[in-house]
Amino acid sequence: MRIAIDAMGGDFAPAEIVRGALDGLQFLGDGDELVLFGREDAIRQHLPAEHASNKKIVIHHCPEVIEMDDSPVEALRQKKNSSIVVMNKMAKERQVDSIISAGNTGACAAAGQLILGPLGSVQRPGIAVVLPSFHGPLTVCDVGANIAPKPFHLVQYAQMATIYSDVILGIKNPRVALLSIGGEEVKGNPLTKQAHEMLKVEPGINFVGNVEGRDLFAGGCEVAVCDGFVGNVVLKLTEGLADGLFKTIQHEIEVESPDLASRFDPIVKKIWARHDYSEYGGAPLLGLNGVSMICHGSSDRRAIMNAVRVCADYIHRKLNSIIESRLAQGDAHA
Amino acid sequence: MRIAIDAMGGDFAPAEIVRGALDGLQFLGDGDELVLFGREDAIRQHLPAEHASNKKIVIHHCPEVIEMDDSPVEALRQKKNSSIVVMNKMAKERQVDSIISAGNTGACAAAGQLILGPLGSVQRPGIAVVLPSFHGPLTVCDVGANIAPKPFHLVQYAQMATIYSDVILGIKNPRVALLSIGGEEVKGNPLTKQAHEMLKVEPGINFVGNVEGRDLFAGGCEVAVCDGFVGNVVLKLTEGLADGLFKTIQHEIEVESPDLASRFDPIVKKIWARHDYSEYGGAPLLGLNGVSMICHGSSDRRAIMNAVRVCADYIHRKLNSIIESRLAQGDAHA
Repeated sequence: MRIAIDAMGGDFAPAEIVRGALDGLQFLGDGDELVLFGREDAIRQHLPAEHASNKKIVIHHCPEVIEMDDSPVEALRQKKNSSIVVMNKMAKERQVDSIISAGNTGACAAAGQLILGPLGSVQRPGIAVVLPSFHGPLTVCDVGANIAPKPFHLVQYAQMATIYSDVILGIKNPRVALLSIGGEEVKGNPLTKQAHEMLKVEPGINFVGNVEGRDLFAGGCEVAVCDGFVGNVVLKLTEGLADGLFKTIQHEIEVESPDLASRFDPIVKKIWARHDYSEYGGAPLLGLNGVSMICHGSSDRRAIMNAVRVCADYIHRKLNSIIESRLAQGDAHA
Repeated sequence: MRIAIDAMGGDFAPAEIVRGALDGLQFLGDGDELVLFGREDAIRQHLPAEHASNKKIVIHHCPEVIEMDDSPVEALRQKKNSSIVVMNKMAKERQVDSIISAGNTGACAAAGQLILGPLGSVQRPGIAVVLPSFHGPLTVCDVGANIAPKPFHLVQYAQMATIYSDVILGIKNPRVALLSIGGEEVKGNPLTKQAHEMLKVEPGINFVGNVEGRDLFAGGCEVAVCDGFVGNVVLKLTEGLADGLFKTIQHEIEVESPDLASRFDPIVKKIWARHDYSEYGGAPLLGLNGVSMICHGSSDRRAIMNAVRVCADYIHRKLNSIIESRLAQGDAHA
């Protein structure tokens, strides 16, 4: 098994990426390799001496870097020697088994779709993100790969996210909801109304109907599907709002009762830790003819380590074969 | 001025609605009236003796009630004698100047659009909600009236919400953002890309570009526009997430440091109070040929009182005339 990691991607690259990759070595077996893609000198600078001759660590030099604010499609065209482009090409040629990047999300998603392409029966890959809800992990798909999906794409997201939730997160027969604007099936936009009709007769999934934004994290489902625009807004709003609320509370405590602040701090840390999505190791591009894990731009070493763990698991459990055969049958439970 | 209130609408109707209406009397002048719509006996039961002969309070008996879970359009057709239908008809005939309801939101929105119809130049009315962000009130339009809008509808939402934010909230030249999935103008779905092009050349608004979900509450804009599906998801997700986070923190404190709980409680209450959207008195259906304020189902007397205040303000300041004339000119600042 060869797991490729983009050492140049993310806010804390390459230092935290290299550290996280080394932490991830524990999940590799004999003969497996971690391949670090990026500028060799920059990577070597962060590689401790004891790892210099470690056969499990390989550096693949890529002189170009796609920056976080580069236009995705433009960057793929112009920076052919960037880590993101080269990793995807090598994944296509099966020279690596999976790729991990905390770099430009748009470029990672576009590279996956343009270079690796979709798995057999999959019409459009989707980005699945696992959010730590108040009642356990919630897998939301799609959060940005497919901005204007057709209803059938949402059915495939439901099937693929069901398999991911089952095989990787260990949630048996996860409940699948359609994110919409009213519980009743007649509510919604044309996309969700049609998707609802298709989801409720789809045999391979445990469809529980529509879920509203208010109840998304209330524990009524373990999988939620939506179009990539709505999913992306939900993902980022959740992040911004949680961050803003904690800051507001902390500020208020510091102003009102400074002595309380030091006691409140560990409680906040504990809640963050329990709801830390770096635990889930990044967002897989489900339905890709390959394994691509897109990590948050702010990924630290722990997030990268977890991405390595999830990737190894993804490969061992042959998730793509399961997706391919179940979707080919049109029945995720067959 | 005659302000109509749906005494039968909302989780705490009629008790809290009647109480809130009475509290709202302070915003009425000589000759003004509050008209309570609903079952007369139910309303009278909550009307204190000292108000029984108050000339400012009028009861308009409506034998039917549209329930919270009734199908909106169906209910409007079948319950012609419900408070929601009768209020809208009387508003159309100018027998009342504005209507307030905390009842079935879909029915209120549909009644407004079907019975009152749009103002002169307005193509599609939109529901505007004022959210207490970390940096002051943020007006989001639309949050559910128009599920599949055209780009021009979003331009009109920007114009109308600008006027609302200016005239009612006192925010001069509010910054208007388009809710999308990336800061760059090329990001988004077909709707937002086209709307972006139109918004940036629209002279009457202070357009500051796209805003992502992460930054919606970060203080970069005072008005945000989006389609009604996305807006509804945002509104309800915000509500559910804020509620869930506070509950999680409180639970954690009770488990970890029970003695802290009693001290944390007033801090939470203070934050809630400062971010209490009942302060803004409900969500106006902007662009309607009439004044209709849709309140949250869980509205208490304070929310209803504030709705009366905002309605009186809306009428005094002739907001609809301003909207009509500015939109007719195609220039909100002319």
